[in-house]
Amino acid sequence: MNSQHFSEEALRTFTNTIFLKMGCSVEHAELASDVLIRSDLRGIDSHGVARLSGYVRLWEKNRINTKPDIRIVHETASTATLDGDSGLGLVIAPFAMKIAIEKAEKCGSGWIAVRNSNHFGIAAYHALMAVEKMMIGFAMTNASPLVAPTYSNERLLGTNPMCYAFPAGKYPPVIVDMATSSAANGKLEIAQRSGRPVPEGWIQDSEGISSVDPHELKKGGALLPLGSDKDHGSHKGFGLGATVDILSAVLSGANYGPWVPPFVAFLEPPSDPVGRGIGHFLGAMRIDGFRPVDEFKFHMDNWIERFKSAKPISKDQKVVIPGEPELAAEIYRQQNGIPLADAVITDLYKLAEKLGVEKPMASM
Amino acid sequence: MNSQHFSEEALRTFTNTIFLKMGCSVEHAELASDVLIRSDLRGIDSHGVARLSGYVRLWEKNRINTKPDIRIVHETASTATLDGDSGLGLVIAPFAMKIAIEKAEKCGSGWIAVRNSNHFGIAAYHALMAVEKMMIGFAMTNASPLVAPTYSNERLLGTNPMCYAFPAGKYPPVIVDMATSSAANGKLEIAQRSGRPVPEGWIQDSEGISSVDPHELKKGGALLPLGSDKDHGSHKGFGLGATVDILSAVLSGANYGPWVPPFVAFLEPPSDPVGRGIGHFLGAMRIDGFRPVDEFKFHMDNWIERFKSAKPISKDQKVVIPGEPELAAEIYRQQNGIPLADAVITDLYKLAEKLGVEKPMASM
Repeated sequence: MNSQHFSEEALRTFTNTIFLKMGCSVEHAELASDVLIRSDLRGIDSHGVARLSGYVRLWEKNRINTKPDIRIVHETASTATLDGDSGLGLVIAPFAMKIAIEKAEKCGSGWIAVRNSNHFGIAAYHALMAVEKMMIGFAMTNASPLVAPTYSNERLLGTNPMCYAFPAGKYPPVIVDMATSSAANGKLEIAQRSGRPVPEGWIQDSEGISSVDPHELKKGGALLPLGSDKDHGSHKGFGLGATVDILSAVLSGANYGPWVPPFVAFLEPPSDPVGRGIGHFLGAMRIDGFRPVDEFKFHMDNWIERFKSAKPISKDQKVVIPGEPELAAEIYRQQNGIPLADAVITDLYKLAEKLGVEKPMASM
Repeated sequence: MNSQHFSEEALRTFTNTIFLKMGCSVEHAELASDVLIRSDLRGIDSHGVARLSGYVRLWEKNRINTKPDIRIVHETASTATLDGDSGLGLVIAPFAMKIAIEKAEKCGSGWIAVRNSNHFGIAAYHALMAVEKMMIGFAMTNASPLVAPTYSNERLLGTNPMCYAFPAGKYPPVIVDMATSSAANGKLEIAQRSGRPVPEGWIQDSEGISSVDPHELKKGGALLPLGSDKDHGSHKGFGLGATVDILSAVLSGANYGPWVPPFVAFLEPPSDPVGRGIGHFLGAMRIDGFRPVDEFKFHMDNWIERFKSAKPISKDQKVVIPGEPELAAEIYRQQNGIPLADAVITDLYKLAEKLGVEKPMASM
């Protein structure tokens, strides 16, 4: 698979121009671009500019409202439900997180359920907004159904990611950002492009039998919950995916389970919705709502040092602190540019042509 | 493995008498007994009266204070940190949950970090206290280190369970209550008693190599995080276990990672503690802090119905809603008594003799 490198700035400018073309305000276009570019910087290639044409196609089908009236529909001092008015999740989720942070500033914590939204990009972007304010950040979202519950061969849950982000002292934040399926869809896409078989335990075929064919989903197969099978705790992965679905959608009034509208524009949303759009759940808790910040920082640093220095099985591979690989990618790509696969570049060029904007230039 | 059945009442009376003998107040003894018996009723045999002699041994070593001064040491409107004064976690966690519920009543949600505690029994007991008030309940705790992080052969995390409990309408609550390891320690204990090999992916030996020997932990082996290996997402299980550890202990001022004091009295706690006792994290969020209760109930019921009716892989095994098996056990055992393995009965009889109290009588 060939690739070329693009500077962060070139992709940011291009993405911003596309969102402006879609009718976003200057503020919204910049924010949405920042979420996508941050994903590419952090090495989560599946959630960055590779998705840009997907958002455009949803907008063309009138499934994304680029001038949303995002509003609180229900609230208490520490909780609220937000209606995203079919806007970009890339814009709605940071808006929700701002409210969570404001509530946390006032009463220790803030929790926002969001309905009537769309794909919100990487969960870590939103959770990290809280970390910058010396708070613990939480972000989760439901998503198009691709995952089968344990014992079923029906796709009823999305890969429903959950993210917990913790500030530290001298070390970078600890960021647990994970799909609740055995493998994220992005990993499956990489295997599809390479044509290589995937490990047993990622997917099952339409009959519910374990498969290593990365194209199984197109034939009625499903991703498996974290744990892969009952013996290894797939009921736990199912439980985590269910938790994300309920907090994001049953609590907010969004669609849940098989009613979640698909991200891909060529599939129509179910004709019998049980709510509005897709749902998210975001939260922020002030560290000093529990403990003086200095004490917390000291012990987070100690926690990180202890786990980093854990006895390794092989001397070539130390224990990885959650969030380390993404931070390493971010530092590297800020300096060296963002590699895009040829298929993604072609996609962006087509988009440039269709919307009449300048193509991004590869930097090397 | 032979067993005999005991009535709920017989075990409750016996357990209560033991806690009174340990010096607990009448109120604390009843509460602690209720947590243990509820675990036996719900089929979580590893966390019920089978642990009673373990609590007694810790008390004999002065590691459990049966007259604790449980107090709030830090708080905001929606958050607090509690010091359990080395008391029984069985008493401290419900105390914390009461405060979480009170805070939620006032400002939508309540979040309590707990330090200086001991083993709190089953997480679901505490989370369900919130469900009874039409709130979502959260409960987690760290525990003695038995689990190795991905890439390490050092035991640095407990099986660190997390529980999310959601009220429903006409259906019982949905309760996700899970160890963040591939298999709970209780399951390993069952395999140890039967002498049967465990599935690959539950444990590794002291070198970090996958093993099926259920006795591997005694030889320096470790339980594996949910996901079992890197290819199947064990870094996610590690991330979840880390999340529980940080919320329960780094946030509260308890011991974390390898510093968590062991539950078993024959192992001394580390001589260089980084905090006080073990830690928990509990929370409650009012449903009507987000959405009218009737709407939530309607959609929870719809969610449950849709997942219960998911297409099964085999017609003999329907999808299991999280919490269903434990509820079925509870109904069955309330009517038919609680089966105890002979080893547990012997243990209780010895305890009765040692503390000079009447033995519980088997009911059939």
